[in-house]
Amino acid sequence: MKKSSPPAPPLITLTTDFGTRDPYVGSMKGVLLSMERNLVIVDISHDLPPHEILPAALLLREACPRFPAGTIHLAVVDPGVGGRRRPLLLKIRDRYYLGPDNGLFALLVRDFGMQGAWQLTDPRFFLPAVSPTFHGRDLFAPVAAHLAGGVQPESFGPAIDDPARLQVPVCRVSGQTLAGVVIWVDHFGNCVTNLPEAAIRKWAAGSTVRVRAVSREIGGISPTYESTAPGAPLALIGGTGYLEIACNQARADRRLRLRRGARVTLVKPQKKTRD
Amino acid sequence: MKKSSPPAPPLITLTTDFGTRDPYVGSMKGVLLSMERNLVIVDISHDLPPHEILPAALLLREACPRFPAGTIHLAVVDPGVGGRRRPLLLKIRDRYYLGPDNGLFALLVRDFGMQGAWQLTDPRFFLPAVSPTFHGRDLFAPVAAHLAGGVQPESFGPAIDDPARLQVPVCRVSGQTLAGVVIWVDHFGNCVTNLPEAAIRKWAAGSTVRVRAVSREIGGISPTYESTAPGAPLALIGGTGYLEIACNQARADRRLRLRRGARVTLVKPQKKTRD
Amino acid sequence: MKKSSPPAPPLITLTTDFGTRDPYVGSMKGVLLSMERNLVIVDISHDLPPHEILPAALLLREACPRFPAGTIHLAVVDPGVGGRRRPLLLKIRDRYYLGPDNGLFALLVRDFGMQGAWQLTDPRFFLPAVSPTFHGRDLFAPVAAHLAGGVQPESFGPAIDDPARLQVPVCRVSGQTLAGVVIWVDHFGNCVTNLPEAAIRKWAAGSTVRVRAVSREIGGISPTYESTAPGAPLALIGGTGYLEIACNQARADRRLRLRRGARVTLVKPQKKTRD
Repeated sequence: MKKSSPPAPPLITLTTDFGTRDPYVGSMKGVLLSMERNLVIVDISHDLPPHEILPAALLLREACPRFPAGTIHLAVVDPGVGGRRRPLLLKIRDRYYLGPDNGLFALLVRDFGMQGAWQLTDPRFFLPAVSPTFHGRDLFAPVAAHLAGGVQPESFGPAIDDPARLQVPVCRVSGQTLAGVVIWVDHFGNCVTNLPEAAIRKWAAGSTVRVRAVSREIGGISPTYESTAPGAPLALIGGTGYLEIACNQARADRRLRLRRGARVTLVKPQKKTRD
Repeated sequence: MKKSSPPAPPLITLTTDFGTRDPYVGSMKGVLLSMERNLVIVDISHDLPPHEILPAALLLREACPRFPAGTIHLAVVDPGVGGRRRPLLLKIRDRYYLGPDNGLFALLVRDFGMQGAWQLTDPRFFLPAVSPTFHGRDLFAPVAAHLAGGVQPESFGPAIDDPARLQVPVCRVSGQTLAGVVIWVDHFGNCVTNLPEAAIRKWAAGSTVRVRAVSREIGGISPTYESTAPGAPLALIGGTGYLEIACNQARADRRLRLRRGARVTLVKPQKKTRD
Repeated sequence: MKKSSPPAPPLITLTTDFGTRDPYVGSMKGVLLSMERNLVIVDISHDLPPHEILPAALLLREACPRFPAGTIHLAVVDPGVGGRRRPLLLKIRDRYYLGPDNGLFALLVRDFGMQGAWQLTDPRFFLPAVSPTFHGRDLFAPVAAHLAGGVQPESFGPAIDDPARLQVPVCRVSGQTLAGVVIWVDHFGNCVTNLPEAAIRKWAAGSTVRVRAVSREIGGISPTYESTAPGAPLALIGGTGYLEIACNQARADRRLRLRRGARVTLVKPQKKTRD
């Protein structure tokens, strides 16, 4: 039965820092649907912190690869709009990414490599007048619609091989300590660190570890939020595969006074020396 | 003409307390569309109060039955994720409900009964690795996609008959008084009570009633918000069929200092005794 | 290939001040999809300022015309719900607009004229019971579904020719000065004025102009946000074609203490008089 159903319409996701009180998101959706009537538009987020690249890059890295191959991911966090930064199309693991070349897609490229990158230069694929302050509507949305309609990536402009990179805080091993930082505080107040589960396991090598958030002792790594009493702090591997500092049914950021950049360290017990 | 159009794609709604700043909602949408490309996903709300069951249960009770038969309603407010609470599939009036067994669906079951309930136990229908902190993405979304794809409810796990219940404040009659509480303050500051229109009508039996919110006299029950001057308080039957305390074009919660749990009473005039 | 694909399903957009924490938006979507299963529903905004007509009218004027012809735009900012204001259907440039007759669509009518306007009076097209507090769900959504299903505009009620107008602050020329006000502060803190690019160009007639926001000198009109140092104020033509006061990567409303109604003036240099 399924074989005879019509092909699914092209899928375009939107990720921006535009908020939802202004005409900006609606204008982009209108441009997309006017140019390609048979699209499916999926909102990922419009509530990213304004002008900040790293939180957007983390979200895109986490959410976008879960969409089916062929999805067109349109992302606009664009403090340099209208300036020298290039408008970009990337192909990564058979998904397309459109947005400003400011590091938004750098974590995707870092973790998955890229199959191609093109600078968007051909104005035939833009709206007739491109506002220097709103490329989401006048440049990226029309290119996304053309891409969904079958235009080939190389038609939009020249291939490039140097998309912008992004400085991400890395975790460091020093003696019996693995040190990282909080890189994101989520909607629940959970404080997500840059300490990946795999790196922790490898470093711990089977030892029981203790977690410290700034100067606060958190204990070991718990399996679930319910491992402590309501309100009590704990450390666990969150849904994105990184260590996070949380409180059971409460906001860890407020209870423990943590914010982005706060230091989180894992400590292994001293090895006993035979003597 | 309509008879020859292709069947409408499966409909999945999402209701969560995830907020819209994190990758969580987008990750769920990605999993759903990766597994079943031809879905229609409808956002009901992602801004429910974190970890609270009653507001979510009230919203689901109100909004979900208005969707067409066959709709799959996926709801995740899940403070006990990864713990002992069961993951659940319910069938209620030909709609499907997926989420944690913590009372989220208790008001739907109370008011409409249920046609079936199943505990989700078969890992063949989950993602290969299930994070103990994100069943929305790893367990409920894949089950929803399989259900949309035609898998039968009983395939996911054993039938159960004891889904979690929910304690809801009830209204009480005492002499000439019908007493309830504010159970929800909406986006406009309207204070929705647990006093249903039908119960009020039956109790009032044609008498004119007066409304009191905590110690404040509000007057009678008005037909519309415009029945008072801008800013003035009033009581009326809101869109969900319950008495609410509102102010015309202003926030009743702030003006009258009401919050969830505040006592609202209806008073009938004393019957005159002949003597 | 495209010629053989099925016709795209009807497109309905939603614009409200309902917020996203309550069942209201979900209930409207449920009613729409129950009545017309094969719709595409697009959220424009649910976060408009409660009860305020002008911000909604500005947003609708900006976003809605960008959608394809035939789109049904459903807008509910409705402080007079249940009162004397008329429920309305408008046809403007081959798009349909449904909502209360309180000025929501006045800027669209002003700028594009109208092809028809009808008062919604026929209860056959409403839900069986119409709550006096929720016409979005009980009246406008069902009419939208019937319209999407092919019912003709004139079936819903009598034609009218006097939809509500809206008082909009206008800019004024006085000597060497063009004076306007901030009419909207966007999500980024950019302060959008009522000074349109075309009027500024015509008035300036090639002269270099200086911009003043309340008593603060801003300088000339810049091409992009990046024209100043991060945090510094600037004036530029925003994406909607109006002059806005902004700060590069910062909130102009807070830095310059601007809010709606704040006076923004353009000044031309004094003409030198020969003597």
